[in-house]
Amino acid sequence: MLVVQKFGGSSVANAERVMNVARIVTDTYKQGNDVVVVVSAQGDTTDDLIEKAKEINPRASKREMDMLMASGEQISISLLAMAIDALGFPAISLLGWQAGFSTDSKYSSARIKRVDPERIRAELDKKRIVVVAGFQGLNKYDDITTLGRGGSDTSAVAIAAAMKADLCQIYTDVEGVYTADPRKVENAQKLPEITYDEMLELATSGAQVLNNRSVEMAKKYSVELEVLSSLKKATGTKVKEVIEMEKMLIKGVAKDAGVARVSIVGLPDSPGVAFKVFSRVAQAHITVDNILQSVGRDGTKDIAFTVPAGSGEDAVEALKEFCEMKGAKELRCDTDVAKISIVGAGMETHEGVAADMFEALADANINIQTISSSEIRISVLVAKEDADRAVAAVHRHFFG
Amino acid sequence: MLVVQKFGGSSVANAERVMNVARIVTDTYKQGNDVVVVVSAQGDTTDDLIEKAKEINPRASKREMDMLMASGEQISISLLAMAIDALGFPAISLLGWQAGFSTDSKYSSARIKRVDPERIRAELDKKRIVVVAGFQGLNKYDDITTLGRGGSDTSAVAIAAAMKADLCQIYTDVEGVYTADPRKVENAQKLPEITYDEMLELATSGAQVLNNRSVEMAKKYSVELEVLSSLKKATGTKVKEVIEMEKMLIKGVAKDAGVARVSIVGLPDSPGVAFKVFSRVAQAHITVDNILQSVGRDGTKDIAFTVPAGSGEDAVEALKEFCEMKGAKELRCDTDVAKISIVGAGMETHEGVAADMFEALADANINIQTISSSEIRISVLVAKEDADRAVAAVHRHFFG
Repeated sequence: MLVVQKFGGSSVANAERVMNVARIVTDTYKQGNDVVVVVSAQGDTTDDLIEKAKEINPRASKREMDMLMASGEQISISLLAMAIDALGFPAISLLGWQAGFSTDSKYSSARIKRVDPERIRAELDKKRIVVVAGFQGLNKYDDITTLGRGGSDTSAVAIAAAMKADLCQIYTDVEGVYTADPRKVENAQKLPEITYDEMLELATSGAQVLNNRSVEMAKKYSVELEVLSSLKKATGTKVKEVIEMEKMLIKGVAKDAGVARVSIVGLPDSPGVAFKVFSRVAQAHITVDNILQSVGRDGTKDIAFTVPAGSGEDAVEALKEFCEMKGAKELRCDTDVAKISIVGAGMETHEGVAADMFEALADANINIQTISSSEIRISVLVAKEDADRAVAAVHRHFFG
Repeated sequence: MLVVQKFGGSSVANAERVMNVARIVTDTYKQGNDVVVVVSAQGDTTDDLIEKAKEINPRASKREMDMLMASGEQISISLLAMAIDALGFPAISLLGWQAGFSTDSKYSSARIKRVDPERIRAELDKKRIVVVAGFQGLNKYDDITTLGRGGSDTSAVAIAAAMKADLCQIYTDVEGVYTADPRKVENAQKLPEITYDEMLELATSGAQVLNNRSVEMAKKYSVELEVLSSLKKATGTKVKEVIEMEKMLIKGVAKDAGVARVSIVGLPDSPGVAFKVFSRVAQAHITVDNILQSVGRDGTKDIAFTVPAGSGEDAVEALKEFCEMKGAKELRCDTDVAKISIVGAGMETHEGVAADMFEALADANINIQTISSSEIRISVLVAKEDADRAVAAVHRHFFG
């Protein structure tokens, strides 16, 4: 079996943890598997490098930042290869470009264009454990690029897809995907399985277990994922196309506190107004969610939507001129809100899931500001101070 | 003019020093020159990386050590490019392989096979200051190699040779090449010029200003070198083929305390004995210097020679069996010795230089154990405790 295993920065943070990862990897190898390991930079290394750069040039070019940051994985892959060697197993470390990662040239958030696994395959044929630097690749100018946040997950899935691996294991500091954040919600349950679509909705709703680009890629190339803990030996959560526990109505409750709500009050109720609002926001490269438009009254209407917290003021800036021109009564941005979502493929075929959620919130005396939904997700906006209580109430309602 | 500038680890040890280097580099650029800068890893980075490796695997493979160590220059080149950018000048950093360094596959002490400066030239054509990672290259397997001690000096000279640069400046923490170590010898004088051969003899005699591989390469390709300080603005020392101060009899006095003396007493005085001794030492890959063979007496003779301090016991080990077989009276290794050398092309045409040196030592009541010489160097072995006094006495004799 060909297994790709990915370990994040906290899993390789120090010598002891690197040895721990080496043990997991060699256990898999000893069972007769071909093993490719993808690692991120050691947690503290990344912070140290950013600090060094800031001291010298707070507005350093992204090209040079990528050159700097990519040294982080170079350190962790060589250390892990040394650790595997210390346990008596053959290993070789490969940088992103050596492992065949070609990307576009968008420094600091590059996209993988192609993985040519020729070198990895040659090393596996020599019965070596192959340790690959995640997060990094090479562009057409032969310059080093990095993939941006969660990039190592994407690197692992890309290798698994290119090599048609049997399994891609994402080791992290939690034991799997839970019905809610287990550090905050009592009785949060670990899910044995979840579909790609559910995982995607959870990831975009604030669950920080997996990066959504990596889930999208896994879905596209049918790579079976497993999320599990590097610190505790236990079965994790499998992410795949079809799962066997459809009887579960919803899979999880997620909170996203990183949102801002933009509201425009008293816009003239004429055709094309909404289009003009959202095209202006899109031109400012701001993603929008949870759109709410009031029913027109007195010839005016209200529009509200949520954006990532960091983009709230930018959205107001992008709309200011238009709102003044149209005579809107108010344009404002609130960041004291949070988005609570429930996700589950089961809700497609069950009525009343939304009503159940709203009932749970009403019973807890929590006011719902806006509502949005997809086929397998319902999200509501609530006051930030109510957010944790809202998650607990909804989770209790669905999971007892 | 095309100028190659090299800065060592201590010259880029922290943010302040990196900015200082950026100022030197941009000053050269502002004068209308094309500038290629070669840098080593930040001093503390190298130590940190070695520490990390030791913690995990004290006998790590050299291939993985090279992968690890090469991250050091990756950090310093990106930081220096950021610093140059912060001063408002265009810069780009290049790793060893991006700058075209091909080496053999002797990990941790690789030799440069070829420098293909195509990418560097393209960047210079764009009017950029090019910052190149010293000390590293790529072998035929597309794996990263490092050049070993003093490797960045060699990298700089190799680029200067490949690009036919007008000047290769080696910035360091001393102001140039001195007639003796200025931290230890009063009145040590900075030399305005020195020949390649003299510099080579000084480098192999314990002067730590320049790595001798880099001087050999500079001589071979007629690269004009200049050694100067990165911390103090002052003219340094030029190293070239022909210099104008031949009137100076000797150029410097050097001390090498890193030697051991191996002695064999009472070997049978038969043909081929010396050959057998030194072929055994050579088979153990130990370099030998200062050979002394006594005149035969009573059918036996004595042989003594010096080796690098770390190889003393290995040399004894390599000779033990042979000495027992031949019935030698004694085989021993002394490390309480130091080699004192004077170097100067002038001694080729002047008699009495050796006598002058021995007189100075005799006046200081220092015993000479063995003597060796080349055309432009005379070395003597003295007790380690006398070494600094010996340097001072000889220096005073020649330089007043």
